[in-house]
Amino acid sequence: MKVGIVGAGMVGSSAGYALAVMGLASSVVLVDQNHDLAVAQAEDIAHAVPFMSSTIVEAADYGGLAGARVVILAAGVSQKPGETRLALLERNAAVFKDVVGNVLAVAPDAILLIASNPVDIMAQITQRISGLPASRVVGSGTILDTARFRSLLGRHLGISPQSVHAYVLGEHGDSEVLAWSNARVGSLSLAEVAAQVGSPITQHVRARIDDGVRNAAYKIIKGKGATYYGIGAGLARIIKAIARDQHDVLTVSCVMAEIGDVRDVALSIPRVIGADGVSEDLMPDLAAEELEGLGRSAQLLKDCVESISL
Amino acid sequence: MKVGIVGAGMVGSSAGYALAVMGLASSVVLVDQNHDLAVAQAEDIAHAVPFMSSTIVEAADYGGLAGARVVILAAGVSQKPGETRLALLERNAAVFKDVVGNVLAVAPDAILLIASNPVDIMAQITQRISGLPASRVVGSGTILDTARFRSLLGRHLGISPQSVHAYVLGEHGDSEVLAWSNARVGSLSLAEVAAQVGSPITQHVRARIDDGVRNAAYKIIKGKGATYYGIGAGLARIIKAIARDQHDVLTVSCVMAEIGDVRDVALSIPRVIGADGVSEDLMPDLAAEELEGLGRSAQLLKDCVESISL
Amino acid sequence: MKVGIVGAGMVGSSAGYALAVMGLASSVVLVDQNHDLAVAQAEDIAHAVPFMSSTIVEAADYGGLAGARVVILAAGVSQKPGETRLALLERNAAVFKDVVGNVLAVAPDAILLIASNPVDIMAQITQRISGLPASRVVGSGTILDTARFRSLLGRHLGISPQSVHAYVLGEHGDSEVLAWSNARVGSLSLAEVAAQVGSPITQHVRARIDDGVRNAAYKIIKGKGATYYGIGAGLARIIKAIARDQHDVLTVSCVMAEIGDVRDVALSIPRVIGADGVSEDLMPDLAAEELEGLGRSAQLLKDCVESISL
Amino acid sequence: MKVGIVGAGMVGSSAGYALAVMGLASSVVLVDQNHDLAVAQAEDIAHAVPFMSSTIVEAADYGGLAGARVVILAAGVSQKPGETRLALLERNAAVFKDVVGNVLAVAPDAILLIASNPVDIMAQITQRISGLPASRVVGSGTILDTARFRSLLGRHLGISPQSVHAYVLGEHGDSEVLAWSNARVGSLSLAEVAAQVGSPITQHVRARIDDGVRNAAYKIIKGKGATYYGIGAGLARIIKAIARDQHDVLTVSCVMAEIGDVRDVALSIPRVIGADGVSEDLMPDLAAEELEGLGRSAQLLKDCVESISL
Ligand SMILES: NC(=O)c1ccc[n+]([C@@H]2O[C@H](COP(=O)([O-])OP(=O)(O)OC[C@H]3O[C@@H](n4cnc5c(N)ncnc54)[C@H](O)[C@@H]3O)[C@@H](O)[C@H]2O)c1
Ligand SMILES: NC(=O)c1ccc[n+]([C@@H]2O[C@H](COP(=O)([O-])OP(=O)(O)OC[C@H]3O[C@@H](n4cnc5c(N)ncnc54)[C@H](O)[C@@H]3O)[C@@H](O)[C@H]2O)c1
Ligand SMILES: NC(=O)c1ccc[n+]([C@@H]2O[C@H](COP(=O)([O-])OP(=O)(O)OC[C@H]3O[C@@H](n4cnc5c(N)ncnc54)[C@H](O)[C@@H]3O)[C@@H](O)[C@H]2O)c1
Ligand SMILES: NC(=O)c1ccc[n+]([C@@H]2O[C@H](COP(=O)([O-])OP(=O)(O)OC[C@H]3O[C@@H](n4cnc5c(N)ncnc54)[C@H](O)[C@@H]3O)[C@@H](O)[C@H]2O)c1
Repeated sequence: MKVGIVGAGMVGSSAGYALAVMGLASSVVLVDQNHDLAVAQAEDIAHAVPFMSSTIVEAADYGGLAGARVVILAAGVSQKPGETRLALLERNAAVFKDVVGNVLAVAPDAILLIASNPVDIMAQITQRISGLPASRVVGSGTILDTARFRSLLGRHLGISPQSVHAYVLGEHGDSEVLAWSNARVGSLSLAEVAAQVGSPITQHVRARIDDGVRNAAYKIIKGKGATYYGIGAGLARIIKAIARDQHDVLTVSCVMAEIGDVRDVALSIPRVIGADGVSEDLMPDLAAEELEGLGRSAQLLKDCVESISL
Repeated sequence: MKVGIVGAGMVGSSAGYALAVMGLASSVVLVDQNHDLAVAQAEDIAHAVPFMSSTIVEAADYGGLAGARVVILAAGVSQKPGETRLALLERNAAVFKDVVGNVLAVAPDAILLIASNPVDIMAQITQRISGLPASRVVGSGTILDTARFRSLLGRHLGISPQSVHAYVLGEHGDSEVLAWSNARVGSLSLAEVAAQVGSPITQHVRARIDDGVRNAAYKIIKGKGATYYGIGAGLARIIKAIARDQHDVLTVSCVMAEIGDVRDVALSIPRVIGADGVSEDLMPDLAAEELEGLGRSAQLLKDCVESISL
Repeated sequence: MKVGIVGAGMVGSSAGYALAVMGLASSVVLVDQNHDLAVAQAEDIAHAVPFMSSTIVEAADYGGLAGARVVILAAGVSQKPGETRLALLERNAAVFKDVVGNVLAVAPDAILLIASNPVDIMAQITQRISGLPASRVVGSGTILDTARFRSLLGRHLGISPQSVHAYVLGEHGDSEVLAWSNARVGSLSLAEVAAQVGSPITQHVRARIDDGVRNAAYKIIKGKGATYYGIGAGLARIIKAIARDQHDVLTVSCVMAEIGDVRDVALSIPRVIGADGVSEDLMPDLAAEELEGLGRSAQLLKDCVESISL
Repeated sequence: MKVGIVGAGMVGSSAGYALAVMGLASSVVLVDQNHDLAVAQAEDIAHAVPFMSSTIVEAADYGGLAGARVVILAAGVSQKPGETRLALLERNAAVFKDVVGNVLAVAPDAILLIASNPVDIMAQITQRISGLPASRVVGSGTILDTARFRSLLGRHLGISPQSVHAYVLGEHGDSEVLAWSNARVGSLSLAEVAAQVGSPITQHVRARIDDGVRNAAYKIIKGKGATYYGIGAGLARIIKAIARDQHDVLTVSCVMAEIGDVRDVALSIPRVIGADGVSEDLMPDLAAEELEGLGRSAQLLKDCVESISL
């Protein structure tokens, strides 16, 4: 399976590196407006391959994406001094109009996997620009926040994060909702397990984990300037589900016809992902305040996306 | 990590084959009273290795188990014509007394992983014979039944069995309990997901899956004489949790101080497994009839184990 | 990727088991004239999946092979009392005529991967029956003998068999040729390495390894009745090269326009394998007596294949 | 297995990320004089884990390395303006004296795996400081250059780099020697294969590949400022050989009693690596000019290491 990556910065290259060391793609093609960067990343990743897999890693222009079954969009445009958030978003939208057009011209059947922030808005914009069905335009959404949530719960309990099933819903951002009421270890409720292993989820623990999930990116950015390994692996994980047609349950962002009172907005809930993209949305039963939070998150995203003129 | 396997029949060799193709052990040593069989199995598995890993696979006598961190006990003694179930069990117990002594003489620090049937009884006998802490005597228990349950639920829903979290508890046998009330897909309840994907768990579906889990072994035995791939992979999965110290949640059989009203009996509930064996028992919240069923299963196993004179 | 397996006996099922535990196929479909056996094998393998991957494993009739990108042919017909080797071969050929027709009717674009013995003859017959280009009709050939050769050399030297590069050429059978003159450890000659690690390849060692490779199957069959794990993993390895389009060098059997003086015969030399089957043949430089041996092997196979009336 | 990493910059963290996504270590501990950086890297990598493995990733001070079986040394000290190469080296040596002492105080049995440049000199210094046997002080050496060589040869031939066996010897740096005379594809000579696949190794191709290997780092640094994915995967590959006791052949740097006329110098040739570090050196048969080049490379390294006062 060929995977394209547009935007060969830290996020795009970390995804490419994970794909190569795990052998999840037979070919990875990196495209960036800074072609020298794409070439350097492709070379660096290609040197990782002979130890582990046979993935062919190359830099190319858009033509090189022909035949790709998935294309990751990880191009980033950073804020100019004095620029408003809205102006930035519109500039981003303009960039994506260009990028998405270029991609679909050569890979019309690809699933588009969006990483660029604000990822929910960019996913919705991409869906509009492309005219593709929502099932084939997938934002990485809260896959990363979900990973953080599981990682912290697993650490607290002394249990593998792979045995912890807990989701972060809504926006990938400040309005996101940690679905505590729903968290499970194996099929057991979090509270049961926490009590049995002698590590109860006190108010203090809950506040610490909530903060850890919500502010993880800020803390990482403070220490190292940006985050990329977590999201790189998250993107590789989504691609594994597609490549092997796994029908896995992952929290990713897609445009939904309605969620609560809000119509036509992209955000994250658990979804089933396989070779054709998203095949099912799975809306969990939530506590009242979580449901409210999710509604607020949806409204906030909807307001934002409506403010942009495409 | 060196893994020993005593009993190089179909179950032992299927476990060894999975360990070798997945590279989960650096060395696999097969011991069988039929030494020619052990040699033939070791050779056949060794030929699988150059394609996939560097596991060294060998046949040996008990001395070859020195240094093993896990030893699988998969020796099987079959019923003689006219022999009662109890007489068979006592013969089995005698064989294990021998085997366990031989293993511990050279690998006193090994975790013992029991596959031989009746697996719960054999695990309890092994714990008694060995005097090891219960955490280091692990029966494969319902790990296989749990896999069957997930496989059938996943198939029904069109979702990866890896995203289905549902357990079979109690005896690995007729009295086992399918914990329907507790089954989850991701962190969502089974009923929610089944409704949302349009594949509700009707009485009919439930009966079919219950039957599928309960009678899988019989059906497979009818078609091919014995079951071995499922259990082989299950044993490899438990060893992965030990080798990588994963602290995974798996349903395995261990002697418990008490379960309901029954004291000192081995059966399966979800447990946390890592490098030191079982570190935690996780007792799920069950529906009343499931809890009753589990009590009955425990009592039945207890009665059986008490009837054997060691 | 969907993989079909016709012949769900020990070889077919061992291949299916390896594919499932390694997650190399998204779907495995087993077909056997003994449908109950196919169902039982599919169930047993399916129970291995929830621990490791998301492969869907099913039994079906030929219709279930629609869309398969590779179909393994592992159906076996055993000798009837009094039947000549030639009569058996003609019966085999008749069976394959039937099987290949059924497969191509639903999976016209599949690569055919033949395991049934005599594998070189069956590969050549399959190519004739199917009319497919030789690149898409691949016999497992000496992949297994090559694995045995590496395994024994690695063991002798104390080096991973994955770092040993040595091939068995020609027929998968008595006339096969161990290419000693060509054997390498990393890129070093075998003799250099053997001297340096203090384990020289004496005449005695050479004879022991030659015998070990040549008679491995006989010894395994003596101890356990049949061989299947080695070949099962070998088939899975070939499928990995196809699934991930790896362009790996493996010794497999294909019809060649000519080899030495013999024209149009299937046997094994190293070949490059990827998504489209065999893309290149790599004929190694051999010692004179090896080359002669290969010629004899080719002639022997040619004589055999000519004796069969299709 | 616990793996420590001292120096949580781009190289150290890329190694940690590869270890985590491949599940090659049960625990990864990052130590850096910039503790905030180590914390940020550990968090970012930890978020990659729940998708793939159960590796525990943490930042710590040296105490956290207790029990590590391998410690990667990837701390980097950069040149100050006006500082001579020698002065820089002596400063580096002073840093390593400190670091190595701190590591061995808590992990006296660890294998030390050096990545910091100039890697051969740093490996030799580390061996002197530590007093450990050469077999337990392993520099990444030319593992990366070897990967580049294979990657370019594989690309030229249209064959998986995993089937290409070709080494870069001597210094990881300008005096390194590409062992062309020795290069193999499978067990075939490079020239044979190149001719057969119709991609001969002309003078032009050879010059291009030689340049590509030799100047890869410069080109990557020009495009992205530093190299890290290739070396990160290379370090993970060495650790795989140790963790699984694979006895793989890899080109790494170790102190040798003598090489040609030069005594007691660290540089790279193929070596066998397993759980106890390097168990064998494998000196390939080389063309005269390659042998001379290797001698020059050894002398150059020896002169450099002698110029440093420890
Ligand atoms: N979804 C998540 O969870 C998550 C996590 C981290 C970062 N991100 C986002 O991912 C994006 C990339 O982050 P990064 O750290 O890799 O940034 P980066 O600056 O390292 O890389 C961005 C790359 O995009 C390229 N680019 C910009 N405009 C382009 C265009 N029109 N065509 C082609 N390439 C173009 C740039 O040249 C640059 O190489 C950002 O939007 C960031 O906010 C998302
Ligand atoms: N736990 C499960 O889920 C599960 C599933 C399937 C089978 N099993 C059980 O696993 C066991 C093995 O089944 P199998 O199909 O491999 O049987 P098998 O007959 O193929 O193999 C049993 C092997 O044990 C050897 N053996 C017997 N006594 C021995 C002794 N004293 N010392 C050393 N070796 C001895 C035999 O020689 C034989 O090779 C049986 O008890 C079976 O019921 C358990
Ligand atoms: N290539 C190798 O290196 C290698 C190694 C071992 C075995 N083999 C060969 O593989 C073949 C299978 O061996 P096995 O041990 O699995 O045998 P087996 O008897 O266990 O299985 C063969 C299966 O083929 C089925 N079959 C027979 N005719 C069929 C037909 N017309 N349509 C569908 N299914 C049919 C049978 O029902 C049976 O289940 C044999 O020819 C054997 O010699 C090859
Ligand atoms: N061997 C190879 O093939 C290869 C390839 C690329 C880079 N390298 C080398 O790897 C090293 C690291 O490169 P990088 O890109 O990660 O650099 P970097 O600057 O990103 O990271 C170096 C880290 O080392 C830390 N450090 C410095 N002194 C320390 C001390 N005394 N104790 C603890 N930590 C200390 C720094 O805080 C920094 O975080 C360099 O020497 C580089 O030349 C080697």
